[in-house]
Amino acid sequence: MFHYPNGKPYKPSESSVQKSTSKKKDSSFSNRGKTLEDEINETNTYYLNQQIAIIHKKPVPVQIVKVEYPSRSAAVIREAYFRTPSTTDYNGVWNGYYIDFEAKETESKTSFPLKNVHLHQVNHMKEVTNQKGITFTIVKFTTLDRYFIVPFNVLHEAWQMMECGGRKSIPLSVFESKTIEIQPGYNPRIDYLTVIKKMIANEN
Amino acid sequence: MFHYPNGKPYKPSESSVQKSTSKKKDSSFSNRGKTLEDEINETNTYYLNQQIAIIHKKPVPVQIVKVEYPSRSAAVIREAYFRTPSTTDYNGVWNGYYIDFEAKETESKTSFPLKNVHLHQVNHMKEVTNQKGITFTIVKFTTLDRYFIVPFNVLHEAWQMMECGGRKSIPLSVFESKTIEIQPGYNPRIDYLTVIKKMIANEN
Repeated sequence: MFHYPNGKPYKPSESSVQKSTSKKKDSSFSNRGKTLEDEINETNTYYLNQQIAIIHKKPVPVQIVKVEYPSRSAAVIREAYFRTPSTTDYNGVWNGYYIDFEAKETESKTSFPLKNVHLHQVNHMKEVTNQKGITFTIVKFTTLDRYFIVPFNVLHEAWQMMECGGRKSIPLSVFESKTIEIQPGYNPRIDYLTVIKKMIANEN
Repeated sequence: MFHYPNGKPYKPSESSVQKSTSKKKDSSFSNRGKTLEDEINETNTYYLNQQIAIIHKKPVPVQIVKVEYPSRSAAVIREAYFRTPSTTDYNGVWNGYYIDFEAKETESKTSFPLKNVHLHQVNHMKEVTNQKGITFTIVKFTTLDRYFIVPFNVLHEAWQMMECGGRKSIPLSVFESKTIEIQPGYNPRIDYLTVIKKMIANEN
């Protein structure tokens, strides 16, 4: 009946679930086992504190069925289900611009599988573009430890080709030629707005 | 430990929880017992379908603690808690403008109690204003069946006066003189963007 995301069971991130004792091993010194979500959240907190931009991750949508109200303590949700998100995960405002994006990881060393992206997300990004918002995808090749900012038109083109029977992934070479690679830093960790700023300057 | 919202137990809306048999009585023909949230959601769906704007309600934030994965069926959340939202409930993009607002109901016939608004929401709206986003509050006086679009500066002024020891509510007379009353329609139900459009036109 329900799959989230992509039929995979829900994998809680550091920020959405209490920490457990079994932790993913550090994959490198530079990312210290953090998920891309954690890195983006850190970046957004930096932007917020520095009053650079107001960008938040949307909560995971759940269908709440049963709630208990124990006396003198917090309400407890006892039955709920994951719902399919109808938008991307992150949005907000920066200097009058509407910013809207998705963050995706892949362990592949050679290409980004388009099954990581949902049709409703592509449609949402198309609608945002029509309303003159700025929308893109941040893709992390976790094994390579490389990060790319993918403008919507690049994703859209690959998606349309897939729908016409073309390949189901975007090769790394396309990332290298048509997207913008971003070097992770200390703080902000993934300074995507600097890239967006340049993209806007180039358009005008 | 946790209160949401305003120490009240969670009241599920039509859209977030499966419908139960006990339904709130219709309070009038025109609103048919719908909550303001339902009315705003309908309006946003209209805007979306007509390609006027892309505005969504954010999911209720929950802290997920325990998830079960029954074989061959959907994952079930068995323990979760409500978290305090750090932003307003609705945001999106309209014609290049970032739109961000909160919707609040009151049963009072004479004033809107400021305890309906949270400090973090006021702070968020202040930050959005600094980033040149458009932010406001839609207030419904349910007993009077009247709707108002409250520009952020009106809310902010009342909030600051309260913090300096002033009154803890905004009188209806202030709504009538300093905010914009909106007549509910059939479709779109609460056409707030038309009001915003006029506000922008008046500013320029």
